[in-house]
Amino acid sequence: MIQAAAKRIGSKAIRTPLLSSPFLDEIAERKVYVKAECLQHTGSFKFRGGWSAVSAIPEADRKCGVIAFSSGNHAQGVSFAAKEHGIPAVIIMPSDAPKIKIENTKAFGAEVVLFDRFNDDRLEIANKANAGRNMTLIQPFDNNEVIAGQGTVGLEIAEQANDANIDAADVLVCCGGGGLTSGIALALERDAPSYTMRTCEPAGFDDVARSLVAGEIKQNAPATSICDAILTPQPGDITFPIMKRLCGTGHVVTEDECLHAMALAFERLKIVIEPGGAAALAAALFHSKDSDNDTMIAVATGGNVDAAIFQMALDKYGSKA
Amino acid sequence: MIQAAAKRIGSKAIRTPLLSSPFLDEIAERKVYVKAECLQHTGSFKFRGGWSAVSAIPEADRKCGVIAFSSGNHAQGVSFAAKEHGIPAVIIMPSDAPKIKIENTKAFGAEVVLFDRFNDDRLEIANKANAGRNMTLIQPFDNNEVIAGQGTVGLEIAEQANDANIDAADVLVCCGGGGLTSGIALALERDAPSYTMRTCEPAGFDDVARSLVAGEIKQNAPATSICDAILTPQPGDITFPIMKRLCGTGHVVTEDECLHAMALAFERLKIVIEPGGAAALAAALFHSKDSDNDTMIAVATGGNVDAAIFQMALDKYGSKA
Repeated sequence: MIQAAAKRIGSKAIRTPLLSSPFLDEIAERKVYVKAECLQHTGSFKFRGGWSAVSAIPEADRKCGVIAFSSGNHAQGVSFAAKEHGIPAVIIMPSDAPKIKIENTKAFGAEVVLFDRFNDDRLEIANKANAGRNMTLIQPFDNNEVIAGQGTVGLEIAEQANDANIDAADVLVCCGGGGLTSGIALALERDAPSYTMRTCEPAGFDDVARSLVAGEIKQNAPATSICDAILTPQPGDITFPIMKRLCGTGHVVTEDECLHAMALAFERLKIVIEPGGAAALAAALFHSKDSDNDTMIAVATGGNVDAAIFQMALDKYGSKA
Repeated sequence: MIQAAAKRIGSKAIRTPLLSSPFLDEIAERKVYVKAECLQHTGSFKFRGGWSAVSAIPEADRKCGVIAFSSGNHAQGVSFAAKEHGIPAVIIMPSDAPKIKIENTKAFGAEVVLFDRFNDDRLEIANKANAGRNMTLIQPFDNNEVIAGQGTVGLEIAEQANDANIDAADVLVCCGGGGLTSGIALALERDAPSYTMRTCEPAGFDDVARSLVAGEIKQNAPATSICDAILTPQPGDITFPIMKRLCGTGHVVTEDECLHAMALAFERLKIVIEPGGAAALAAALFHSKDSDNDTMIAVATGGNVDAAIFQMALDKYGSKA
């Protein structure tokens, strides 16, 4: 399915580069590569899953359009993929989602339906929006076509790492519901089986790390974090068994480590990453000294960050001229 | 020579992606692509020319090392290329160059010799540093091997634009001495002859635009600009005849347009560009409405910008959440 998704996506997705800097290697005391998926269309890997899911809908059903729930990156990925296919998209977003993400989703041509997450029933709102329309629901991670689309990141990592003569590595992935992690894990199982997959989550949202230890799905207690892109309550029913079979121990990073990684990515790689998209680089830089591998490949999953938060990272951790 | 340089560089340089965003297309009222050369090793395209020149030195002379004058990106590009070849580099830098650029150049393994540009004779300092060492001088732009290395950007643009089915386009290049512009122009003359090359310079440093109009080399009057990477007094003796033969009219952009382009590149493309590296994107966004082509390909030449200047761009032109 990943191969098929890659074929359908073709040159529609950016083949994002594998970046590196001797300055980052020095901090990590090993070789660090960054798969810069923040450069993907819509600013995150979510475009791949969106394109894969939209393009997998049978022709007859496609014109009815698609519907999705999301407060951010999945919303933009699905909207843009739908727009490029010339079909309608309805995105159900919480009314307190960042205004800029709501505006971007609308700008990608989607019909945005807002709901009050404290008083409304999200599903009821969605059913109402879909009444008589028969739109296809695209789940953010527990969806085989979405996982296959995200898995195309894994195909590229295997090819690019092979070009760079990397025999063994930890592959570190910022993890929310596990769609990207499980997709990459499946791709690497075939194409780079000697690599070790490891999830990276912010403190307080380490449901996947704890679930992997327990061998069963664990939930997070209510909490807040600046890593908005990867704050899911628990791993998915489809994604968890894949992660359980293919992932090593999970990393847990602090918000400050994410901000520090953002400033270093600005300074050394010239890319913009959002807090949740910096978790894997933070783990590579600050938590990998116990690894058996001397090469880290961190996926920078997204770059949709407000200027104010980015400036906070630079204020706190940027070099002074 | 460009083909040969590409062969020597091989996978040592990042194949930088061609990025785009519908939001930028809307501003420019045409399709805008950005060749993100800020993602290149050392944060600018200069690594390509550095690698090309170092790798072209005959084996017997190579161990003596290389010497270059530079206050910034060329210093870093040459140092890193020399380091990767395992040979020494001496870089003559003005003592008032940004501290961080001096530190980076040292970190890339170069021996940095500082000079006082108001009281010292730069050539005398260089001759003293090179006494009895027989190091090869690598000029920043008036050097055939350097031009050939920068020209590999043009080979990639032609391939990537062909993949994107672009038949005709303006190719906009941030221009200092003209090494990159003339290299790309030569590559496209063969691989994409229907494209129009156009230089982009900051106001007050439009020596190339004026020289192209006059048909002979013109100089800039003394001035200052935040676009430090492309402030050369006049086009090169080797580069100007190439540009004269192959380039259309030059664009001149303001500092504010560069800051605006930097903020838009942050928000829409998730890349970090420095003021001088933003001149081409600024021209594509704000100055291309008179063009015959409906597609603009802007080269984002570098990303070596201090946090303070980057924050100024975001303060002035970043979207408020």
